[in-house]
Formats: sequence, structure tokens, C-alpha cells
Amino acid sequence: MLQIYTGNGKGKTTAALGLGLRAVGAGKRVLLIQFLKDGQSSEVKAIKKIPGFDYRNFGKKGFINKNNLTKKDFDLAEQSFNFAQKALKSRKYDCIILDEINIVLGLELLKTDDLIKLIKTIPPKTEIILTGRNAPKKLIQIADLVTEMKEIKHYFKKGVKARKGIEY
Amino acid sequence: MLQIYTGNGKGKTTAALGLGLRAVGAGKRVLLIQFLKDGQSSEVKAIKKIPGFDYRNFGKKGFINKNNLTKKDFDLAEQSFNFAQKALKSRKYDCIILDEINIVLGLELLKTDDLIKLIKTIPPKTEIILTGRNAPKKLIQIADLVTEMKEIKHYFKKGVKARKGIEY
Repeated sequence: MLQIYTGNGKGKTTAALGLGLRAVGAGKRVLLIQFLKDGQSSEVKAIKKIPGFDYRNFGKKGFINKNNLTKKDFDLAEQSFNFAQKALKSRKYDCIILDEINIVLGLELLKTDDLIKLIKTIPPKTEIILTGRNAPKKLIQIADLVTEMKEIKHYFKKGVKARKGIEY
Repeated sequence: MLQIYTGNGKGKTTAALGLGLRAVGAGKRVLLIQFLKDGQSSEVKAIKKIPGFDYRNFGKKGFINKNNLTKKDFDLAEQSFNFAQKALKSRKYDCIILDEINIVLGLELLKTDDLIKLIKTIPPKTEIILTGRNAPKKLIQIADLVTEMKEIKHYFKKGVKARKGIEY
């Protein structure tokens, strides 16, 4: 099954994390792949202590956008896709989370069609979770579940900065 | 800070769980109180193994609705509110999740005004997370962050049943 958590509100990555935690609690094997993240988020420390919850990140410090992409970003995207592909095809995991992959697709570091092609080769009993703003329409079309996390109110607008243990 | 996750889409409880996991990873002390739940969800098994992540549930098997409320439901709601109140006032936790409390308020098992009165006595550095559909407007007004989990697509509509490790 393919689940997508998208939208501009807080709760996409955390929903995927919570689903991973629930799955592990049921004895499922879970892999979280974080794209564009440097592996320093607090959740990583907690996950690494949980048996059955594997973790891998591909990213570097700082935010990237369409105007500051470098060859390194494309290389990292390719590496991450190859890793995700191997993990999905290995049948080692019941649940694979591709965190922030929608952003990678939006930046055109990876092709949506390549991801769709890959997903179509995976048996439906494997849970694939995609997160990130602006999920491509083509992905939404083939997904089994899509939730839009819609920002109604956010403390960032009041000037509150991202906080360790809450945002990262 | 008061955060609310509401809406008809999947991802409210899991977003709160994921936030709890991240907070624990940052060394924060977290308490998850599940209302209306029997404590048999898979996430509970995982949480109980995580140091610093406490858990308590108030509920019974089966779903309740406006038409089948019993004295027991009111008693459980009162117990759960008293427990939440003690926990919040104890200053023992950095982050307290009241899972499905919006449903409890919608069923009028607890009064929204009583919850608001309680929240106003808690220092803002304590993170209070509320989940459940149909968050009362009065709560949204005083919240620092509100995300609406909006269902765009759900496999339940295709006849898929709730699955262990994914929905519970």
C-alpha cells in the first residue's frame, strides 16, 4: 500500500515516524530513509535504540532550493534512490518510509516516473510511506491513501523558531 | 505551547506519537494519555520499551458514540481528566499528549471550558498536544499550532479494513 503525507502543515514526518513506531510495536520491520536531512534530528537518536526500526539518511547540512543545487545534490539523490530501490526489492522490510521524497521530486533531483516505476514492482503488502510538501499529482493518482496536512495556525508565524525535540 | 491535530484524515495520533518519539530523542520527558482506547494498540508495545516515554490509557473495548454512552464512560472521562490534570501540574513532563481528547469533548464527556481552564495554568514551555476529529473552536482559538489532517484519499473507501501495526 502506498501512503502519502503532504501539505504545508506540521505533522508529515512525525505521522510517518509514529506509523513506523506502531508498525514496530506489531513486530513489523521498518526502514526510515530521510532525504535531504543530515541525520542530526532528535528522532534519529530515539529510533536507533529501537530494534526492528532501521534508519538511513542522505543529505547535507542546510536547506537546498532550486537555485542552489550542486552536483553533490544530484549525486546524493541518485545514491538515495539506489538505496531505496535495493531496500524495497530486498523484501527485508514491511514498511519503508521515504521522508521528504516529495521535496526531492519537486527539485527534480529524481524523476517521479522512475519512483512510480519502482513502486509498481513492489508487492502491495509492503507499506510505502512518502512525505513532503507538494506531492506530485501522478503519485497522488496511484496512492492508496493521501492525507493533506493543512496549516490552520502555526507558531512560526508568531516568530517562534524551530525547537530541538519538537521540530527537529 | 498548545498543538492540535484534527481533521478527518489519517495521521493525527501518529503525528503525536512521532512528536513524542522526537521529543524523547532530545531527552525530553513525554507522557501519552490515550482517551477512549483500550491500550491494545501496537504503538503501546513499542512505547513501553522506550525510557522517558510514559503511557496511560482510559477507555474500554469498542467504539462509543452519542447514543450508547453509559455512566462508566462519564466515570472514565472524569478519571482521565483528573489524571491529566495531575500530570500537567506535576511538572514531571516536557510534553503531554492527550490522544483523542477532541472526541471526548465532542461527546460532552468532558467540558471544553474545564480543559481550557487547566491549560491556562500550565507554563508555555510545556508542550501540550491534543488530537482527534472536530477540535472545538474555543480550543483552536487558544492553540499555538493547529494542523488539519484532511483526507484526500483513504483505502477504507476501497473496503480495506483497519490493519494491525498500521491503524492500531
